[in-house]
Amino acid sequence: MKPPFIHHDFLLGNEPARKLYHRHAELQPIIDYHNHLSPGQIAANHQFGDLTELWLSGDHYKWRALRANGVSERFITGDASPEEKFRAWAATVPYTLRNPLYHWTHLELARHFGINELLDVGTADRVWREANTQLPSLRVHDLLERHQVRVLCTTDDPADSLDHHRAIRESKLKTRVYPTFRPDKALHIRQPSAFNAWRERLEQATAGPIKTFDDFLSALKKRHDEFHAAGCRASDHGLETCPASPCSHAQAGHIFNAARAGNVCSPEEYSAYASFLMLEFGRWNASRGWALQLHLGALRNNNSRLLGSLGPDTGFDSIGDFPQASALAAYLNALDDTNELPRTILYNLNPADNYIFAAMTGNFQDGVMPGKVQLGGSWWFLDQKEGIEWQLNALSNLGLLRRFVGMVTDSRCFLSFPRHEYFRRVLCNLLGQGVVAGELPSDLPLIGKMVEEICFTNVRDYFGFEPSPEIAPCL
Amino acid sequence: MKPPFIHHDFLLGNEPARKLYHRHAELQPIIDYHNHLSPGQIAANHQFGDLTELWLSGDHYKWRALRANGVSERFITGDASPEEKFRAWAATVPYTLRNPLYHWTHLELARHFGINELLDVGTADRVWREANTQLPSLRVHDLLERHQVRVLCTTDDPADSLDHHRAIRESKLKTRVYPTFRPDKALHIRQPSAFNAWRERLEQATAGPIKTFDDFLSALKKRHDEFHAAGCRASDHGLETCPASPCSHAQAGHIFNAARAGNVCSPEEYSAYASFLMLEFGRWNASRGWALQLHLGALRNNNSRLLGSLGPDTGFDSIGDFPQASALAAYLNALDDTNELPRTILYNLNPADNYIFAAMTGNFQDGVMPGKVQLGGSWWFLDQKEGIEWQLNALSNLGLLRRFVGMVTDSRCFLSFPRHEYFRRVLCNLLGQGVVAGELPSDLPLIGKMVEEICFTNVRDYFGFEPSPEIAPCL
Amino acid sequence: MKPPFIHHDFLLGNEPARKLYHRHAELQPIIDYHNHLSPGQIAANHQFGDLTELWLSGDHYKWRALRANGVSERFITGDASPEEKFRAWAATVPYTLRNPLYHWTHLELARHFGINELLDVGTADRVWREANTQLPSLRVHDLLERHQVRVLCTTDDPADSLDHHRAIRESKLKTRVYPTFRPDKALHIRQPSAFNAWRERLEQATAGPIKTFDDFLSALKKRHDEFHAAGCRASDHGLETCPASPCSHAQAGHIFNAARAGNVCSPEEYSAYASFLMLEFGRWNASRGWALQLHLGALRNNNSRLLGSLGPDTGFDSIGDFPQASALAAYLNALDDTNELPRTILYNLNPADNYIFAAMTGNFQDGVMPGKVQLGGSWWFLDQKEGIEWQLNALSNLGLLRRFVGMVTDSRCFLSFPRHEYFRRVLCNLLGQGVVAGELPSDLPLIGKMVEEICFTNVRDYFGFEPSPEIAPCL
Repeated sequence: MKPPFIHHDFLLGNEPARKLYHRHAELQPIIDYHNHLSPGQIAANHQFGDLTELWLSGDHYKWRALRANGVSERFITGDASPEEKFRAWAATVPYTLRNPLYHWTHLELARHFGINELLDVGTADRVWREANTQLPSLRVHDLLERHQVRVLCTTDDPADSLDHHRAIRESKLKTRVYPTFRPDKALHIRQPSAFNAWRERLEQATAGPIKTFDDFLSALKKRHDEFHAAGCRASDHGLETCPASPCSHAQAGHIFNAARAGNVCSPEEYSAYASFLMLEFGRWNASRGWALQLHLGALRNNNSRLLGSLGPDTGFDSIGDFPQASALAAYLNALDDTNELPRTILYNLNPADNYIFAAMTGNFQDGVMPGKVQLGGSWWFLDQKEGIEWQLNALSNLGLLRRFVGMVTDSRCFLSFPRHEYFRRVLCNLLGQGVVAGELPSDLPLIGKMVEEICFTNVRDYFGFEPSPEIAPCL
Repeated sequence: MKPPFIHHDFLLGNEPARKLYHRHAELQPIIDYHNHLSPGQIAANHQFGDLTELWLSGDHYKWRALRANGVSERFITGDASPEEKFRAWAATVPYTLRNPLYHWTHLELARHFGINELLDVGTADRVWREANTQLPSLRVHDLLERHQVRVLCTTDDPADSLDHHRAIRESKLKTRVYPTFRPDKALHIRQPSAFNAWRERLEQATAGPIKTFDDFLSALKKRHDEFHAAGCRASDHGLETCPASPCSHAQAGHIFNAARAGNVCSPEEYSAYASFLMLEFGRWNASRGWALQLHLGALRNNNSRLLGSLGPDTGFDSIGDFPQASALAAYLNALDDTNELPRTILYNLNPADNYIFAAMTGNFQDGVMPGKVQLGGSWWFLDQKEGIEWQLNALSNLGLLRRFVGMVTDSRCFLSFPRHEYFRRVLCNLLGQGVVAGELPSDLPLIGKMVEEICFTNVRDYFGFEPSPEIAPCL
Repeated sequence: MKPPFIHHDFLLGNEPARKLYHRHAELQPIIDYHNHLSPGQIAANHQFGDLTELWLSGDHYKWRALRANGVSERFITGDASPEEKFRAWAATVPYTLRNPLYHWTHLELARHFGINELLDVGTADRVWREANTQLPSLRVHDLLERHQVRVLCTTDDPADSLDHHRAIRESKLKTRVYPTFRPDKALHIRQPSAFNAWRERLEQATAGPIKTFDDFLSALKKRHDEFHAAGCRASDHGLETCPASPCSHAQAGHIFNAARAGNVCSPEEYSAYASFLMLEFGRWNASRGWALQLHLGALRNNNSRLLGSLGPDTGFDSIGDFPQASALAAYLNALDDTNELPRTILYNLNPADNYIFAAMTGNFQDGVMPGKVQLGGSWWFLDQKEGIEWQLNALSNLGLLRRFVGMVTDSRCFLSFPRHEYFRRVLCNLLGQGVVAGELPSDLPLIGKMVEEICFTNVRDYFGFEPSPEIAPCL
């Protein structure tokens, strides 16, 4: 009988890879230290109404594939029924051959539902019925615990309440769930009305007026402190490029006041203000022992027409080709110069820049801890086999792969945890190839230890998270 | 006996690849929707005088290799005899090992002349004699029909007469030959004397004076209409980067008038004017259902000394490293915003930008048709195995490979049709590797259908060409 | 018994590769035409006091790895004992798996000391003792002659005395050692005090005052002449990007005078002045028949804090993402326009630019000699298997690999000559893969000749070095 597409040794193309994966990688629990999952759904232990809600709603990767396949928006984000939307997706899947969606789709059907059929129009009915039947036993907590997710970090705005996080801590969920401080909106002063609306939300979150720039900084710092108390150990920043033309506190305040008054500042003023704030955030992180995560290189909101009707994060973002090196070096150096560079993770979206980012990390390793400055895992458009291998190779050649803190899902969907499995298979396959080619020593206990470090130990030690108790694997 | 270098399974390194190629790919006819072949030679069913005229004259790929090999210009573009030039090439071929020219050379000798020897100084005499002997039965129409070229699109200036195209339609040639609208010279206002000479050619082609900017736009639009009537279904644009700083009609007219008066405009004025025209062309294409082809990233005419003596397109062009993403997004968005974005093919010359272009296509897929915005096939310096694989991988990972409209020769030589075979072998080899590695399902009918779509069906359906009748394969 | 990690066929993954390497590549002597070895240590036939002095001091590749591994600066560049520093390195080696340091470390232990153990904390003692015991028979001349280094080019400042080179010529060393003219400091006018200190050193070297710009040019030209007399046949230039906005002699003199007076010029003035000088250097080289080496793309001195305490070249340099193509084309074209472009080698540090550089070489091949403009070997951060393969592939696809002048160590350490072996193994492995895949003809004598050309013959013929007599191989 033909083995299923997602079989026991999927992506493991050599004997050492199979040993490394099955003896080491697959036994490791998950620390998913960056994703966009909903704290509210975790707190509520949400039960999904159907497979479309769980799997398709909110997944802009799939939406882009549907649009490229000529599917009308009605069946993607529109008013078609959940089942119609699912059928549109099922019909598109055979057109995603060689796209990571083809692998993720079948990996997720296999791991969550035990479904090993290839999804297409012919199997859509059976898959729809079978998966929906299982949903009552696949509530959010089930999904987290089944995958041994020991730590999970959501992404939270400083204006967000931490109530859901409090509720999660008080729930029976074994997974430790922590917020991540993501103050991107503090920088978005070039859209003053949105900025001021957000500033007002921040006022509510901090229960105090934000009139002056000092009020503003105090409010942000107060949230930083409260996030710390809630277990947060990292901030995260989404930027085209690193702002690196800092100005004085007085100048930043001046620019803030103009935005508060509804005026649009110049690009230079934006950069000065953003640089000032980014240095502040860096210093706050350093003093708290937090990690600083920089997600650089996205070119966002490229389609005004569909952005207008669908809003942001709906599949119209892309990869930019900005110059990165000099500004990134200047920013990191400004923090390092006063010994205030926190542990830092650089996530790069343009694969042409992998080597630039990997080389950059080496400039700011100062021997205080192993792997202080990290080349972040392969991200968004690069979260697929080729992209993962490029990131691993750049890191290997220019730094210490063995100190890597590993992969994250970066996902908005509770079915995405098998992406850790995917990464681990790719990692083991690559290492196994090295053993077969004689480029790595034929010492599987040594390489296996390295696998465990990259999959779990390094990240456990890198952040200062309070760990969850062990979660028994479900088999 | 040792098999010839170009053997039955050339480049097909695994069993599924061989099946995919021989059962699917090689049976497909050719639609060569972008090249630089001469409509005049097609109309005349030109007979070539010797192998040098057919194979070496005009091929700047070979000229660059000859120069890099230390061959004097006399034997390349100079007054050496055709036979001397051929010998210089034969002596250079063994120095092209690992260059695509080594493959193309032997593929073309094998496919057109049945010659399976490796070309070098020792075999030059025999090859010269044998090939020249066969030339009488290798006139242009023979070459097109033998390769089952069902559709062929030349590249034509709006100032070019369409007389040759008319003559071709009236000839016995089975291949359908259509012009492509390439109005690059309309943008070249920074060289006013060349621009005005070309404008006068356009006046003749439209039989009317071009005094005002409105005259100019009307003349171009008239040609656009006449090209449509001649079966043209696409425009093509060669640009360093996408002009994306549009101005008003009045401003563009002002800049046009200055050029018409012989004045050199500023770079900013050029960009504004070029942006205005490119939006016009995009809208005309949208209203006609044409495809818009953008060839971005070449850095041309780098060698003034040899450009001065040899003119353009003689081997002194190169790859630029321009920022592309933001301007390209802005241009496509400006068209999309009013629902006037035509089907679009983005050809990228800098391989570092493959992912940027591939991601960009996804921003403007709107579900109206499958694969509306395409990542164009691997082009010029990238038209070789490594470059083809990179393009296929970028497209696969960020879009839908199965919707790809496939390869073109982009050639100036009538012997280049085996480049389709070359591409198809690389494609099948890559897909076969995926099957062997378990990254694609082991379902050869499914993958075979995908091969046929990429080689023929997709492109047939993408453009609105009137198809030729089937052409019997010659074996 | 398990073979050692660095075994007879290390990196040679196929049968043709093994034949190509053992029958052709490994028999070739070495011409190491670019490195940073100390002429003083060569002249003195220096004997190293311990393995740390020979192997770790000055090697910023290892220093970066140590810092990334969390090792304190005391054990890297600080006051720890040589043995303590060695132990810190031994403990770090197992964390360099997949980094080129892991290969180089064991290759160097094997080739120089016959040590085949893997270095780690468990083997550190034995390795330390064994290697130190052998040092008396591993003086500098031993190391050069054992590796059949026929020519070695150091990198020398125009202000450097050539006394060491004179002493080397008069010594018994068989290796021919030549200086390379590296006038980078002549461009560094934006740091006037360092510039003027260097200018004074140049005064001493030329025994004359440098008051005017003409004095300055004369002094540099005098050194160029004296370097030529000492056997120098190449200059070398380390630049972020190619300066290509030339000014007049008068303007350059004006800018020079301002620097001489201690004033910091504008970036535009720097570029004009640097462009003027780079054109001068190019012309001098052309008239002497020297090669011009351009090392482009490094982003240097990124860490002010550690730069302040440790100085330059200590591991805080990185890869830049500067636009390169247009300026490089303009510079080369300015020299070519008057027929004064010397043979030129373009070394690129950003792997995303490999194709841009490779394509650029083709614009200035003029048929005067084979391979006049070269894509330089894989350099610094790219001197590892992946980087070497990328460089070979870019060169192969866009130029003539068979005309390549091959690899250099670019090293500061006398143990680095096995990097030639490393390169040759990677080259043979790649060519052998091509033979196995049928992408190269199965004609090993032909491919073997190509290997010999790339490893030795091409470089011997490219530069005009006076060759050393043959050096018997030590086995």
